Amino acid sequence: MSFSSSLLEQAVNEFSKLPGIGKKTALRLVLHLIKQPQEETQLFADTIARMRREIKFCSKCCNVSDTEICNICSNFSRKKQIICVVENIRDVIAIESTQQFNGLYHVLGGVISPLDGVGPDQLTIEPLINRLTEDEVEELIFALSPNIQGDTTLFYISKKIKDLPVKITTIARGIAFGGELEYADELTLARSLQNRQPVANYVSMK
Amino acid sequence: MSFSSSLLEQAVNEFSKLPGIGKKTALRLVLHLIKQPQEETQLFADTIARMRREIKFCSKCCNVSDTEICNICSNFSRKKQIICVVENIRDVIAIESTQQFNGLYHVLGGVISPLDGVGPDQLTIEPLINRLTEDEVEELIFALSPNIQGDTTLFYISKKIKDLPVKITTIARGIAFGGELEYADELTLARSLQNRQPVANYVSMK
Repeated sequence: MSFSSSLLEQAVNEFSKLPGIGKKTALRLVLHLIKQPQEETQLFADTIARMRREIKFCSKCCNVSDTEICNICSNFSRKKQIICVVENIRDVIAIESTQQFNGLYHVLGGVISPLDGVGPDQLTIEPLINRLTEDEVEELIFALSPNIQGDTTLFYISKKIKDLPVKITTIARGIAFGGELEYADELTLARSLQNRQPVANYVSMK
Repeated sequence: MSFSSSLLEQAVNEFSKLPGIGKKTALRLVLHLIKQPQEETQLFADTIARMRREIKFCSKCCNVSDTEICNICSNFSRKKQIICVVENIRDVIAIESTQQFNGLYHVLGGVISPLDGVGPDQLTIEPLINRLTEDEVEELIFALSPNIQGDTTLFYISKKIKDLPVKITTIARGIAFGGELEYADELTLARSLQNRQPVANYVSMK
């Protein structure tokens, strides 16, 4: 692309550093900002810069937070005895949106994946084990991605804490609501048969 | 979406104001920025804010510019007698990328479209006519979108300047390179037959 303005070019370059944003999309976004009032664009830039400067990671669960301890960990109405272990911040937001979970979280920051150079030391496994011993945690719910890396991480952590009096569970795998049985992959269908549920449970959930 | 951090939420809201960016994409972009070093994100924000604050519109051609007169209009090696009329800044970038045009531009800022409330007064038609009389313009090449609005704009301007000694042309419409004949629409195919070119022209272009 050939720009008549280096200010424009720099702004397009900055936008196109973002994941999934190519040069053409970046140009579209920048031209949109040019059309907006100057205060709007200033607010956009200030909000982003301030967010990056001031955002913290909760010292307990490693979730993003405005304060030293996040508002989930510091909420007294939530059950501190149940911790849901997730890969990243996005998973916390997804589970919170269901409004079905009233315990706390622990954000691992990824899953064990030797091919990507991610070992247990890069994850927040040590702080998690400290939480288990310090607080009186009764149940650890693993909500990791259903793949090799997720399973490896699950087995690694469960092995490390097998002597602690903590119940370890994982979220149910099965046929998704609205999913057609014939299109489900064999592994999901097989697991969903193995982990079949009494109909009484199913009805009581409704 | 339910956020544990209002800083995160505000940043996601700002990103999702951009065209084509939904909440999920906005969250992905913000989480990417959180992982970057703070200076990187500061640079991103500063570049965008500075661009919006300092960018100008060329007082001759209305293209974006760092200076009062853009670097295309102030380039002495370009032919001032030929002006290419385009709808927006993106079109200038597209034509400049071909490296085939050595004249100047005029950015209309849109096309006449009564349904969208865009009349001739909202466009930079008056400054264009002033340029034609002030500078010694010999040819006006219209490179507008091939639709009703583009054609209306073309006819409106050509009528206004019919008494001036300016040659008016429009870029060729036809079958695109690499396009399959059978998939071309009738109008394009019909026009491309009407405006058929001597093969000699075609060969000399190569």
